[in-house]
Amino acid sequence: MPGTTPQPTPAPRTRSWWGWGWADAHPDDAECAAMGALVPGTLAHPVPVPRVRDLDIGRPAVEPPASLAHLVATGPGDRAAHAMGKAYRDVVRALRGRPGRIPDLVARPTDEREVADLLDWAGERQVAVLPYGGGSSVSGGVEYRGDAHRAVLSLDLTAMGRVLEVDTAGRAARIQAGTLGPSLEDQLRPHGLTLRHFPQSFEFSTLGGWLATRAGGHYATGRTHIDDFVQSLRVVTPAGTSASWRLPASGAGPSPDRLFLGSEGALGVITEAWVRLQPRPSHKASASLAFTDFQAALDAVRALAQSDLSPANCRLLDAGEAALSGASHDGSAVLVLGFESADGPVDARLAQAVDLARSHGGRGGAAGAAGGTGGAGGAGGAGGAGADAAVSAWRSAFLRMPYLRDGLARMGAVAETFETAATWDRIPGLIEAVRREVGEAALKGSGHPATVNCRLTHVYPDGAAPYFTVLAAGRPGDEVAFWDDLKAVASDVLHRHRATITHHHAVGRDHRPGYDRQRPAPFALALRAAKDALDPRGILNPGVLIG
Amino acid sequence: MPGTTPQPTPAPRTRSWWGWGWADAHPDDAECAAMGALVPGTLAHPVPVPRVRDLDIGRPAVEPPASLAHLVATGPGDRAAHAMGKAYRDVVRALRGRPGRIPDLVARPTDEREVADLLDWAGERQVAVLPYGGGSSVSGGVEYRGDAHRAVLSLDLTAMGRVLEVDTAGRAARIQAGTLGPSLEDQLRPHGLTLRHFPQSFEFSTLGGWLATRAGGHYATGRTHIDDFVQSLRVVTPAGTSASWRLPASGAGPSPDRLFLGSEGALGVITEAWVRLQPRPSHKASASLAFTDFQAALDAVRALAQSDLSPANCRLLDAGEAALSGASHDGSAVLVLGFESADGPVDARLAQAVDLARSHGGRGGAAGAAGGTGGAGGAGGAGGAGADAAVSAWRSAFLRMPYLRDGLARMGAVAETFETAATWDRIPGLIEAVRREVGEAALKGSGHPATVNCRLTHVYPDGAAPYFTVLAAGRPGDEVAFWDDLKAVASDVLHRHRATITHHHAVGRDHRPGYDRQRPAPFALALRAAKDALDPRGILNPGVLIG
Repeated sequence: MPGTTPQPTPAPRTRSWWGWGWADAHPDDAECAAMGALVPGTLAHPVPVPRVRDLDIGRPAVEPPASLAHLVATGPGDRAAHAMGKAYRDVVRALRGRPGRIPDLVARPTDEREVADLLDWAGERQVAVLPYGGGSSVSGGVEYRGDAHRAVLSLDLTAMGRVLEVDTAGRAARIQAGTLGPSLEDQLRPHGLTLRHFPQSFEFSTLGGWLATRAGGHYATGRTHIDDFVQSLRVVTPAGTSASWRLPASGAGPSPDRLFLGSEGALGVITEAWVRLQPRPSHKASASLAFTDFQAALDAVRALAQSDLSPANCRLLDAGEAALSGASHDGSAVLVLGFESADGPVDARLAQAVDLARSHGGRGGAAGAAGGTGGAGGAGGAGGAGADAAVSAWRSAFLRMPYLRDGLARMGAVAETFETAATWDRIPGLIEAVRREVGEAALKGSGHPATVNCRLTHVYPDGAAPYFTVLAAGRPGDEVAFWDDLKAVASDVLHRHRATITHHHAVGRDHRPGYDRQRPAPFALALRAAKDALDPRGILNPGVLIG
Repeated sequence: MPGTTPQPTPAPRTRSWWGWGWADAHPDDAECAAMGALVPGTLAHPVPVPRVRDLDIGRPAVEPPASLAHLVATGPGDRAAHAMGKAYRDVVRALRGRPGRIPDLVARPTDEREVADLLDWAGERQVAVLPYGGGSSVSGGVEYRGDAHRAVLSLDLTAMGRVLEVDTAGRAARIQAGTLGPSLEDQLRPHGLTLRHFPQSFEFSTLGGWLATRAGGHYATGRTHIDDFVQSLRVVTPAGTSASWRLPASGAGPSPDRLFLGSEGALGVITEAWVRLQPRPSHKASASLAFTDFQAALDAVRALAQSDLSPANCRLLDAGEAALSGASHDGSAVLVLGFESADGPVDARLAQAVDLARSHGGRGGAAGAAGGTGGAGGAGGAGGAGADAAVSAWRSAFLRMPYLRDGLARMGAVAETFETAATWDRIPGLIEAVRREVGEAALKGSGHPATVNCRLTHVYPDGAAPYFTVLAAGRPGDEVAFWDDLKAVASDVLHRHRATITHHHAVGRDHRPGYDRQRPAPFALALRAAKDALDPRGILNPGVLIG
């Protein structure tokens, strides 16, 4: 049963230090200008791509200890690339030459012992430790803010990137936390298994990051979050290493794993996990339907979520989002449906789902051909490829989206997303209020009309997760403050409608005000106490979740 | 959407103060003697049914405050009935006239304010508060042990027994924690909805108890525990009331609800919850298959758990358990399968499941007729009635089991169960070791051969939950010590095989040694800190989980 697969050689492409993903995938100046021309009130020419050598980085405030020095990088490129996550406000700050606090050191431990040693050293020296996976945080989760520590160490876990054991019969694997999405799937593929967790960040995020932030993945219904796929965790804390037993289920007290899931590096460093796997799907089918009436589409989606059908993909794009992604151009909302199974054909389930959607006014719904092997990369993120044109258009746009966002940011535009979840009774009013209030705030702040689109990314019998895209003229040079204003308006709407501050993007630092209002006060007391017990010197990801 | 249904008038039957369930459902002396004759080495005559008036109860050590006195009972009957749960060791102690510490007061608050007032008063007076739902704990969860408190108050929540709101479109309801199973379903029935949570204790346990202990319910696969049906919780703690938002899903930090789920009254008193409901199933089908080879049956069950079929019931009884319940008399193991749906017929899924089981050597499998309305009472606990004789036999035995246990206890026999969960790779060795080691210890301790049977109650793609029944001659007069010895042997086996100390019976006080060994040390630190923050005077269910 145990087996070890060597980590494949990393691809030679270079990550962007300031923007999303691969440096060579960014739109060039001409593309940026063309995009900018579509958004009234943006710049005539793109802001130049920022260079590390233009930053005032300075020398590290501390030297790494000799015994750990071989794990630690201090070069400007490494340090700059670890200064922030990849939110719009991070990209804009980099473009303006004002990135967040540059960490003094970037450490890349190769095993759990080294993680513990680094924490011990940091505790003695009052050095803040920011656990760092793929760096794809869009909520300020990997950035130091404040001045209470002598120095800042970015703890990059990607040198711990191996699948250590695979239990084929029991469909589970023990995987190191620093394993990036594509490598994780590459290592599982020879076993015929998949984790099937495909967030939009799949290429640039790690298992540990998914666990620490309760990431939302591939499934649009049912087990949407990584949480449900966890058998056990190993977590290094300053107070010792927590190792839960590998169990299919347990009722022994509050779940230890559930305390660390979503702890965002503030309680400990997740170093490995046993996770539940699935056979690679051999049968897929997808289709899309158009709806003239958005409320009818919401009703259709609710009926699907409450049925026995369990679609793997069930994304509803409102008219604006459908137009933006090329899935529709006639003002219709578009529902993208996908089914998959390793057991047998899913065409009958798809046909039932299409019938159900049509009974609520959906048009179209011809099934797409089962596409490719799917599930092996970001492509899986859109829920299984299909020949249906709207499905393909949506999938391409989905993966390209963050790059385009950065291109628009170079044109001075605001281009960002945020997401939430609420019960069905609140969904229509919530979506309407976000569109109206954020739209009005953007118009007021920039002087130009803004686009606020919505899609539902995950749906449940009792509610849904709306995901909003904001596209507006910016306030060039003042982008961060402007975005923060819009975000505050959005957070107020979420709070009034009792919609969570985040369904799967994590709290980080950017969502703290909303999180603090949402979190029950006694739970905050318990979390504070747990933090003090596990991290008595307060070195772990300071400012995240608590304190 | 909001609607209030009055609580139905309680049935006039009387609960047994010392044994399981209804007093009038206990086997009489003749039945006890007949059962005892089947277990070598038991008494010739049953131990008499104990009487409250024979107990040395004494006066309460404290007076209730005048403002709350109308909520508090001090009569011997109430106090005796709240002294313990309903484990075998509790029943035996009552039979021997040595029940656990009798609580001084039994309070029945009618709303959350009164719960808070009682906690405030208890905190000032150093009175231990033991939250009490239906009193069906089988792990010492509702019993005071120790002497660090001035007095003991049993906080009986059954006067908070109403369904307060039903969201039909969103399939959820807000329900008070003290609602007993049958009343909960009675109040939901007019809405066409069901919680479908049917533990064996259904008649005698409450929503709050299920939540506080992470109870396992109706479903044999998928969402087996009550945990997954929670939208939000209200929990009164000495540090304030925790109220989480009603959400279909969230990724905002560690889940507040998951800290209180399984907290067993040690962190706060759960007063109400929004829970997810389902439409009442309109289609049901069930079947059973016999297996000569237990390992083949395990393989069949694993294949079923890893399929897309999602049986609602998938219980595997080993040969001894099948014989004991009347499901089989030829030495075969028996697999009981049930499917149900509100969407459409389930016959095709049942047929596929039967085919899969047959491909692993199962015999039989003719489908039973869909039985009754199901799901409305304890009867649902066996997973949907069917005409198949083995299914019926199993269901009757399942519900009658705890009463028979008490009858056997009156004959001086050991008759008790315990349960666990482990990954598939450990299941065969675990079951074999429990049978052998507990059997040997029972033989050694009593001088008579013992029966140790096993069934799988819940199955997962990555493991299963074995449930063991021990039937042995006791050591009359020394039953508690004898059972504790057997339990220690069982706990050691579980620990060596990394099987959880409880899958759904809770930790209570009886499982503390096993729980303490299983729980990661840093999590124990965090839990201790959370307890101190929420319950600084240490009045809540002292000795449970921590401390």
